[in-house]
Amino acid sequence: KVQHQHLRYNPLRDTWVLVSAHRMKRPWSGQVEKEEELHVPRHDPNNPLCPGNTRANGEVNPDYESTFVFENDFPALQPDGPDPGSDQHPLFQSKAARGLCKVMCFHPWSDVTLSVMAIPDIIKVIDKWAELMVDLGSTYPWVQIFENKGAMMGCSNPHPHCQVWASSFLPNEASLSDRCQREYLKNHGEPLLLQYAKMEAESQERVVVQNSDWLAVVPYWATWPFQTLLLPRRHVLRLTDLTSQEKEGLASIMKQLLTKYDNLFHMSFPYSMGWHGAPTGPHLQEDQSHWQLHAHYYPPLLRSGTIRKFMVGYEMLAQEQRDLTPEQVTTPLHCTFFFLFQKSQK
Amino acid sequence: KVQHQHLRYNPLRDTWVLVSAHRMKRPWSGQVEKEEELHVPRHDPNNPLCPGNTRANGEVNPDYESTFVFENDFPALQPDGPDPGSDQHPLFQSKAARGLCKVMCFHPWSDVTLSVMAIPDIIKVIDKWAELMVDLGSTYPWVQIFENKGAMMGCSNPHPHCQVWASSFLPNEASLSDRCQREYLKNHGEPLLLQYAKMEAESQERVVVQNSDWLAVVPYWATWPFQTLLLPRRHVLRLTDLTSQEKEGLASIMKQLLTKYDNLFHMSFPYSMGWHGAPTGPHLQEDQSHWQLHAHYYPPLLRSGTIRKFMVGYEMLAQEQRDLTPEQVTTPLHCTFFFLFQKSQK
Ligand SMILES: O=P(O)(O)O[C@H]1O[C@H](CO)[C@@H](O)[C@H](O)[C@H]1O
Ligand SMILES: O=P(O)(O)O[C@H]1O[C@H](CO)[C@@H](O)[C@H](O)[C@H]1O
Repeated sequence: KVQHQHLRYNPLRDTWVLVSAHRMKRPWSGQVEKEEELHVPRHDPNNPLCPGNTRANGEVNPDYESTFVFENDFPALQPDGPDPGSDQHPLFQSKAARGLCKVMCFHPWSDVTLSVMAIPDIIKVIDKWAELMVDLGSTYPWVQIFENKGAMMGCSNPHPHCQVWASSFLPNEASLSDRCQREYLKNHGEPLLLQYAKMEAESQERVVVQNSDWLAVVPYWATWPFQTLLLPRRHVLRLTDLTSQEKEGLASIMKQLLTKYDNLFHMSFPYSMGWHGAPTGPHLQEDQSHWQLHAHYYPPLLRSGTIRKFMVGYEMLAQEQRDLTPEQVTTPLHCTFFFLFQKSQK
Repeated sequence: KVQHQHLRYNPLRDTWVLVSAHRMKRPWSGQVEKEEELHVPRHDPNNPLCPGNTRANGEVNPDYESTFVFENDFPALQPDGPDPGSDQHPLFQSKAARGLCKVMCFHPWSDVTLSVMAIPDIIKVIDKWAELMVDLGSTYPWVQIFENKGAMMGCSNPHPHCQVWASSFLPNEASLSDRCQREYLKNHGEPLLLQYAKMEAESQERVVVQNSDWLAVVPYWATWPFQTLLLPRRHVLRLTDLTSQEKEGLASIMKQLLTKYDNLFHMSFPYSMGWHGAPTGPHLQEDQSHWQLHAHYYPPLLRSGTIRKFMVGYEMLAQEQRDLTPEQVTTPLHCTFFFLFQKSQK
């Protein structure tokens, strides 16, 4: 059966993705990525993220034993910043941007990732995420927790860590997702992602891992080849609303999902991931029932550990495009030992 | 004077970019890109884009002497494709996508780029672009001309070439730009980019190169560090509307802009670029006076020929962020011999 190209609608971003199933057949003579360094020492005296080491600003890290949070030494957002005022030409508009950037280490050891950490240690990460959401979310309208994993994703440090950037404004992606979820609830009477999780759980067509509280799927509208969406089954607005049972379930499904990723190409799988939940700060007072908590995983790879998908010319200028369908990648991800591309196309 | 972070509005996309001027100071210990291969042979018997060679599908290229256009052997868009029908759940929507993908070689030699080609040869490229816009634009509503240059931009072939993807639909970026320009004309009585070009020409603050018909600026809302916008000074809807004097001026300003790019880090500068003009096909019959023809240049580099800007975690999940202001890069781009970052930050 010939798979024809088609467009799919992303209801969270109100955009379309071009799905060209047949493009995987083209030979690749383009850039091949470096293999990731394999031998990361457990403790490196020169790594500013390790316990006991001195950072760029002269501060000394404590001998931490689980997670450790500190202010980013080169923050993109700072608490101060002048207001440019409102008397602006429509083509030259600027706004004040204020915020805080934090770095959070997951574990004292540099040679682990979330996929190999023990469940109780992953739960400590989730607890710390929730704690940061409470602290920063009490005043900031948006708190973005994200992890860049792997050199391919611009991550400059192999130590397991994520970042937390809190801002005085709703970033583009947050306000787009807010608008889409709000309109969906208004038009269809049910939160978008709550209905979506139910339908995916029923069909099982794109489910990668699941447990009683969580679901990880390759979304119907995925743009990155192995993109996944991690969703609670219950209606949950924010990380701060998770019960301890749900946190355990989250630790377990994260470990499973990330293990499947690692198994796919037999490597520590690179990705950028991040949490989206209802806005905070002044929005804590508002009805945000159109929101459903979720995490996006965006891995850059296409065919093997060294061949990535380039989102370039057509994607930047016109529309995102993928070379195989979300359904085509679900099985290899779900049953990683049954993966097809690896040997023949590397 | 301390440069504070702030947001800038992109009126062509209705989004904001976070500008954190002070981030360039952070040390870089992340991924370093491979240097581009320097010795590209003028003619490589194994390169499917060279004159006289055989391509994947068995076709033999003619001994072309200027430009050469052929159908992409692994097209993301094909003229046929079934219609999925309209009886769809709002969360699982798909649409037919039909189109054509062409490849266009700029020159018979593999060891040249547009920056080193002679003006008459660049004019032939522009003439061919206009010809393709006439041909494909007679039926297709959008014809995307784009060039991925360099391995860093997913380009798998060093031979100077671009691609042309025509589609039965307006891609996301096209319809977003269409909406923004349409609303601007309605609200302000003048086409957005016509007014913008005038104001930039007056202030000269972000102008990289200019001549009597064209202007290349680092737009006020640039997201990529060295992003530029190439604009005609006259109101021009499409590439097909350019006079021969304007084509000459375009060839000359492209050559100058690309030479400045090459000089910046003393290398063949990588980028993705593409043309946006008024929609075609059925839209040729409509009033499209809100449109102004323009080209976007998106180069990936940040600090040197081997250190790129990663648009990853925060950018993918929240909002695009840049590490220096558009004004900070205009001078080094404009006066490439006066560039500041190269030696100290490599
Ligand atoms: O068509 P090419 O050059 O093989 O492929 C390149 O450009 C395409 C269009 O931007 C992208 O979809 C591909 O990921 C990229 O590798
Ligand atoms: O903050 P880091 O890890 O130094 O930097 C990385 O993540 C940031 C947030 O996504 C990006 O802006 C940078 O381009 C990337 O290199």
